[in-house]
Amino acid sequence: VAIEHILLLIAIVLVAARIGSEVAHKLKQPPVLGELIAGVIIGPSLLGWVEPDEALMMLAEVGAVLLLFEIGLEHDVTELFKVGRPAMLLTAGAVTIPFLGGLGAALAFGMELLPALFIGGMLTATSIGITARVLTDLGKMNTKEARIIIGAAVMDDVVALMLMAVIMGLVSGEGASAQDVVRHIGLAVLFLVGSILVGNRFAARLLRWLQRLESRGVLNVTAFVFCFLMASGAHLVGLSPIIGAFAAGLVLARTEQVMHVREKIEASADLLILIFFVMLGVSVEIRALNPFGSGNVSMILLGLSLIAVALVAKGVSGFVVFGEDVRRSALGIGMMPRGEVLMTFAAVGLAAEVFDQTLYGFMVLLVLASSLVAPPLLERALKRVSPLEGPPPRPPLQTGWIRPYEEKKPDEMP
Amino acid sequence: VAIEHILLLIAIVLVAARIGSEVAHKLKQPPVLGELIAGVIIGPSLLGWVEPDEALMMLAEVGAVLLLFEIGLEHDVTELFKVGRPAMLLTAGAVTIPFLGGLGAALAFGMELLPALFIGGMLTATSIGITARVLTDLGKMNTKEARIIIGAAVMDDVVALMLMAVIMGLVSGEGASAQDVVRHIGLAVLFLVGSILVGNRFAARLLRWLQRLESRGVLNVTAFVFCFLMASGAHLVGLSPIIGAFAAGLVLARTEQVMHVREKIEASADLLILIFFVMLGVSVEIRALNPFGSGNVSMILLGLSLIAVALVAKGVSGFVVFGEDVRRSALGIGMMPRGEVLMTFAAVGLAAEVFDQTLYGFMVLLVLASSLVAPPLLERALKRVSPLEGPPPRPPLQTGWIRPYEEKKPDEMP
Repeated sequence: VAIEHILLLIAIVLVAARIGSEVAHKLKQPPVLGELIAGVIIGPSLLGWVEPDEALMMLAEVGAVLLLFEIGLEHDVTELFKVGRPAMLLTAGAVTIPFLGGLGAALAFGMELLPALFIGGMLTATSIGITARVLTDLGKMNTKEARIIIGAAVMDDVVALMLMAVIMGLVSGEGASAQDVVRHIGLAVLFLVGSILVGNRFAARLLRWLQRLESRGVLNVTAFVFCFLMASGAHLVGLSPIIGAFAAGLVLARTEQVMHVREKIEASADLLILIFFVMLGVSVEIRALNPFGSGNVSMILLGLSLIAVALVAKGVSGFVVFGEDVRRSALGIGMMPRGEVLMTFAAVGLAAEVFDQTLYGFMVLLVLASSLVAPPLLERALKRVSPLEGPPPRPPLQTGWIRPYEEKKPDEMP
Repeated sequence: VAIEHILLLIAIVLVAARIGSEVAHKLKQPPVLGELIAGVIIGPSLLGWVEPDEALMMLAEVGAVLLLFEIGLEHDVTELFKVGRPAMLLTAGAVTIPFLGGLGAALAFGMELLPALFIGGMLTATSIGITARVLTDLGKMNTKEARIIIGAAVMDDVVALMLMAVIMGLVSGEGASAQDVVRHIGLAVLFLVGSILVGNRFAARLLRWLQRLESRGVLNVTAFVFCFLMASGAHLVGLSPIIGAFAAGLVLARTEQVMHVREKIEASADLLILIFFVMLGVSVEIRALNPFGSGNVSMILLGLSLIAVALVAKGVSGFVVFGEDVRRSALGIGMMPRGEVLMTFAAVGLAAEVFDQTLYGFMVLLVLASSLVAPPLLERALKRVSPLEGPPPRPPLQTGWIRPYEEKKPDEMP
């Protein structure tokens, strides 16, 4: 493809992304949603300006890797051990119930075990960014419920990614014998735990040494190189590259330079992540969602069931948090929003042909549905919950793909 | 190509680039040189780790576009009209003499008119970044000679790019009838002048309006979109995309937000520009420089002649600056360094099959030779030139591809 054509396509994608997130902002929706829908609109289903062609998909895939890198950079693993009992219970519920629900629904519709496991795993995702924004917008960040939700959402990210690491390993491998399962669990745990242990020991020292080199931009280049090498390394041991990028983020998150790394990679990563989100939408074939099309009725029914399962399963997961004086209905609703992590899984699944265009389209609809349904439900559930004393908890830092707006200053909050 | 493979290749290219520029730094050579040679080393001619494959070349081409965008951002066109008579004379000499020299040499070796024109045009390039660094390192920035050289080097960039816009238009078009030449000169002038006039009128207003939108990262995205659209636009009127990117940079250079734009795009642009420089080296086939290979002896002789012509033609161009009390030999030597602009032209020429691997390799050698030869000659020529009163002129601001090192503070200069 000629370079001027690619440049034009990138320009269209970026403009669509900006318009999409502006409109989403006006409608008080998360920007990710606007970018997805912008992609659907410029994609082959509607305007047909942009096709999921090779060059753009390559950039989008690098974007997905960088997205998981950024998510990793936002999580300090040692913080995970500090979340309290209620957040742990909530995580357990919010992972197990959607997983079993999705698995069950897929099997009930006659899917094979491996794709069904993949679908179950996808539904375990939550969107910590969207959740944190909704809680902030409601002025309820400073409640006990919000603290539990944020803690659980952070853990959910890590647990969901480890679960998917295993399932993706199985899917890309030969089969799902007990031996394979054990081997892939072993690999995933070894890779994540190993890289974090080794990383903690050496990453800080390496970064300090590199900073002593005189060249400008060393940190920038080093961060990308580390992320890309870990992504390739993950592939080498049979895991998905995005898991490696996530591990790379977790490792650097523990170094002194994490803020600096984040700042440096933000500008370039955000551009590619924007392209990733728009291309997620471009890949949607609206035709595949048409129930009058030939032979995809059962897939459409499965898709609709999965949306229901995904919302209800997270919604009820709060009730496993027994013995605490909290509004338990709010906890589950807080875990309901889906966004970037679910879509990353869905993109991997579509590329690996775990499922077809129809189910992929319904995953986009799930993101849409969850971000429409969760905020009003959460508002209602938290209506009579009063804030705690003291300052609100600091929500996890977020980069551009989730926080493209000026942050509210604390004194503007109700 | 699988994503993990591309990520690994990018990681290798970036690491090679950093090592190359570190080594160049230790040897007091410009970083561009180290990156070119790093590319040759990891390329198919030597280690064979990286091939000029499609995905990497696409990223490199986007890098070339961003490089010209950054160069454009560094030039304020209104400053061009302020350079004095001696700088104008020097520019005239430093463009005309290498152009005619290269054209003549190519014709003498039996080349067709169009490729010969292209070669002549290539040799008109200079590297303002390398020149400014050499003058700073010698502590001679504050001389009348240095002021003339810097002024002329800025003009040389613009004149060389306009000249090449016309020649590239002719090469990509059908032929070189008088009518074509006039049409392409008209197009090039219209595009550059037109976009700067229209741009000056609307760019500032557009940027201000966009900044009022609340989304974060708007300026970043807008700058890239503008650059990419102008590059596509240039192609539409038959010019090379790099010319459009350069014009986009010139336009934004006149806005209030230029420093802000530069800061925003720097991190992402620098990464892709690094990839561009390394891939320039990866594209070199050392075999093609072997005089005992079959049938390329005349090309090798032409290549060697072009290196000599390129150095001598710039070297003598200072003597056209008549009637000034300056060390005229120093002026020409100051215009001698070649770097990023020459290599961008060479990459375009290779891709358009204007010339072959052999001549392309000699252009890389020309960059090498000029950066070895110019500094000692300049040191000698300026030895007994004493600095002017007052503060030294501010060298044009440069971004990462030419200034990866901590800038010397003024009081450290001799």
